[in-house]
Amino acid sequence: MVFTNGKKVLDACGLEAVYVSCEYLMRYLCGFGAEDGAVIVDKTGTTLYTDSRYIEAAEKLFKGTDVTPVMQPRSEIFKRLAAYESVGISFRETSHAGYLVLEKAGVHTVDIDEHLTKAMIVKNEWELANIKKACEIAEEGFLQLLPQIKEGMTETEVAALLEFNMRKCGAEGVSFPTIVGFGAHAAVPHHETGAAKLKFGDEILIDFGCKVNGYCSDITRTFLFGDDGKHEEFKKAYNAVLTAHNLVQEKLVSGMTGKQADAIARDYLQEQGYGELFTHSLGHGIGLNIHEAPSLSIRGESELVDGMVFSDEPGVYVAGEYGIRIEDTVTLKDGKVVSFMSKTDKNLIIL
Amino acid sequence: MVFTNGKKVLDACGLEAVYVSCEYLMRYLCGFGAEDGAVIVDKTGTTLYTDSRYIEAAEKLFKGTDVTPVMQPRSEIFKRLAAYESVGISFRETSHAGYLVLEKAGVHTVDIDEHLTKAMIVKNEWELANIKKACEIAEEGFLQLLPQIKEGMTETEVAALLEFNMRKCGAEGVSFPTIVGFGAHAAVPHHETGAAKLKFGDEILIDFGCKVNGYCSDITRTFLFGDDGKHEEFKKAYNAVLTAHNLVQEKLVSGMTGKQADAIARDYLQEQGYGELFTHSLGHGIGLNIHEAPSLSIRGESELVDGMVFSDEPGVYVAGEYGIRIEDTVTLKDGKVVSFMSKTDKNLIIL
Repeated sequence: MVFTNGKKVLDACGLEAVYVSCEYLMRYLCGFGAEDGAVIVDKTGTTLYTDSRYIEAAEKLFKGTDVTPVMQPRSEIFKRLAAYESVGISFRETSHAGYLVLEKAGVHTVDIDEHLTKAMIVKNEWELANIKKACEIAEEGFLQLLPQIKEGMTETEVAALLEFNMRKCGAEGVSFPTIVGFGAHAAVPHHETGAAKLKFGDEILIDFGCKVNGYCSDITRTFLFGDDGKHEEFKKAYNAVLTAHNLVQEKLVSGMTGKQADAIARDYLQEQGYGELFTHSLGHGIGLNIHEAPSLSIRGESELVDGMVFSDEPGVYVAGEYGIRIEDTVTLKDGKVVSFMSKTDKNLIIL
Repeated sequence: MVFTNGKKVLDACGLEAVYVSCEYLMRYLCGFGAEDGAVIVDKTGTTLYTDSRYIEAAEKLFKGTDVTPVMQPRSEIFKRLAAYESVGISFRETSHAGYLVLEKAGVHTVDIDEHLTKAMIVKNEWELANIKKACEIAEEGFLQLLPQIKEGMTETEVAALLEFNMRKCGAEGVSFPTIVGFGAHAAVPHHETGAAKLKFGDEILIDFGCKVNGYCSDITRTFLFGDDGKHEEFKKAYNAVLTAHNLVQEKLVSGMTGKQADAIARDYLQEQGYGELFTHSLGHGIGLNIHEAPSLSIRGESELVDGMVFSDEPGVYVAGEYGIRIEDTVTLKDGKVVSFMSKTDKNLIIL
């Protein structure tokens, strides 16, 4: 595996060197993240600075590539950086304290956040493969969870079980704190998973995801724990949300803006009388961060192109009553939407 | 519950106001952390800036206290900050990009990292109670785990089970990625939990912890999965590490430096012939961060005083053979060490 993102960013910013020291940007530039490490990319190649904890694994991974793992103190890194005319760093991911240290060491820095955002928004094959795997594990964990859900369980227990299933299936960990909402809790888009107990007839909303090699998945499913006959409004709304979700996957094509994508779902829900109840945007980019560019919202001006990965997550919320969100992580390929989620049925599940 | 840490920091730095916007520092100043929020402390009290996701919970929590939760846009916060003569912020926890935004908004900032570190190093009753709870849950999760461990399980499965147990017992999540090492993997202090399968006679080292209200626990236990009669050296070393661990809890008194504390364990292990094999420091502070001040190491110059919380974790590692680490999270009270861990037996467990 040759990691070319380092060169991609270096070429884009046109500087002598690029320097990062946070884990996810290290991963982005060379495919390897490590605590207390750093990466320098210049025209001679990529240097991975790490310590005794990671050096063996890094040497094995990068044998025969242009990435050179070394163990050197921070002072050596600064000395090298100071010798460049200018070094691109992420102002967003560098603390002000860290910036002052670089300045004191005589390093001339330039902000490359815009270049990073632009480069990271389109994923390469390695990145897509990791996201796909993270999506498969999330779906598998969910399928294992369904028969495990029992009356009287708390939201926290259901979240813990799902996280356990994903870990067993190979997830490194969750991509964000799992949201489990029973009954009217589902109407709160960012509900804090708690001690509420599941009872017959409750709806269940679960928003979750996991990580593989640092790359995230994001998925939401809404379903019923038995049908007590009081869910007519819910079912009507469920079908509207599902149709909106599916319409996006049918009609969104490369070249549209985030705003146009959002409008596919928003216009349909509006027509069906749910316009005011779709209280958030359609989606967000997904990669090494669970929320990143592009934005699929009424303010999303940037163009959606092949290789981008984002969520398709319309929702309808009636405070105190019910909430519905159906979310896949998807990508654009050959101009069209391809969902990473294929294992789970999106027609309403009634346990 | 009245949260006084905000006033404590404001008084210590002697500025007109203190401003933080990262979650754990918000928690530290007012006991409430939230995504995308902020806290300002000045002589009139504490203002918690948050959004619709958290406002209800915050209003309930702070009723009748001097903490005022409000929903206001970032621009209003900046306007207020610009009116102070100077505002204390954490240069470590503010991105350089964020710093530039403050500067542009006309906010005159002063770094208060030293004051924060000094204030956070001594815990109040609320903080101690949270850490105690996080320790109790970690121990309970471990006790539930022991009978669940079976031959053929992978390190990852054992980690997932333990994390599940802690979640069920009320943990918000892990305080760091759980380390499970079987056999010679235990000799790598920062081993990456993987696909190795447990077999009869393996030693098992587990380093783990969880969070309660943002506060961390940290604990390591080393034990045997059956005794194949090949563990004589291991057992000898185990007893030495346990004695060193216990000696620290007996002999460490308030007023000693981190270096003197470290020496209690290091000198004993040296005497027993394990000096070179104790390859890390005795301990580190624990609070809202899993690693914080004070440092109990050969370079630990600062004095240890009542109310500090830190780890007592001597270890002995023989590459390719075995590794032993025994760790409690402890505090200093009335001049002496009090461990938060009391449920788990530290004499060698053979499953």
